[in-house]
Parts: sequence; C-alpha cells; structure tokens
Amino acid sequence: MKAKIVITPKKAVLDPQGKTVQTALEHMGYAGVAAVHVGKYIEIDLQPGTDKAAATTALNEAAHKFLSNPVIEDYRLEIVD
Amino acid sequence: MKAKIVITPKKAVLDPQGKTVQTALEHMGYAGVAAVHVGKYIEIDLQPGTDKAAATTALNEAAHKFLSNPVIEDYRLEIVD
Repeated sequence: MKAKIVITPKKAVLDPQGKTVQTALEHMGYAGVAAVHVGKYIEIDLQPGTDKAAATTALNEAAHKFLSNPVIEDYRLEIVD
Repeated sequence: MKAKIVITPKKAVLDPQGKTVQTALEHMGYAGVAAVHVGKYIEIDLQPGTDKAAATTALNEAAHKFLSNPVIEDYRLEIVD
C-alpha cells in the first residue's frame, strides 16, 4: 500500500519556480503553456497489512502539521493499494 | 488540458529528504512506514485546443532536458483533459 501526497502552492501565492519553468518552456519554443505550478511530491510506502483508515488519519495530520505549510500550500492525499 | 510531471529520485540514489520525513513520521508515533520518497511535482496548464501528441513530445523533451536530472532522477509524465 502506498500513500501519495502532492503539495502545491495556493493559487493566490506567488510561485517563482513555476514562472521560471513557464519562461523556460517558452524559450524552448513551446508556446501552448498557460500556467505552471511547481510543488512537492511525497510517496510513502506503507507496511503490508496497514489499516487504510488509520493511515489516512495519521497522514492527513502529518501533511497538515509538518509536510505542508497550510498558510501558503494546499495538499492532496491519496492512498492506493 | 493539464500535464502533470512527477520527478522522483532513482531507487539507488540516496534520498535524505525522504529519510527525514520517515524519521519524523516515526517520531510522531506512526510506525507503519516502510519507505518515503520525496520528489518534485510540476503541473502545467495547457492552452485550450493544444494538440495532445505534440504536447506529449515537447514536454517529454523538456522533462528529460531540464526539468529532471536523468542521471539521478526518474520522471513520469501524464496528460489529462
């Protein structure tokens, strides 16, 4: 079982890394880019037989408390078998 | 249309950030973690009407050339409508 957490800056927050990637893509000659957002990706391998509900609760807490900064970032947690 | 690129360190490469998150989770009292990998997540909003095949080619090239370091990182590109 794996947990995947994607952390992205909130829409209202300046994303200089995203802006840089967008400019770089335009310089590469690829013009079809409207916006770029750069975030973090955390993949957690859970031990076999882990309880899915308990894992979801614990990881939501972890994501909120120290993996993301809730003031400027959003996170998305997904648990896959 | 959106492109999502996930960049993770190769399995053989040391991932100190992942190790730190794993230790932090264990200190939080959550013991069911086997391994943690930390990577980058890039979301690219494509302009409406963009050709999916052309976007895939251009973004694969971009991911390989400057978004990831192919020596130590793997990337996964996904284009969703």
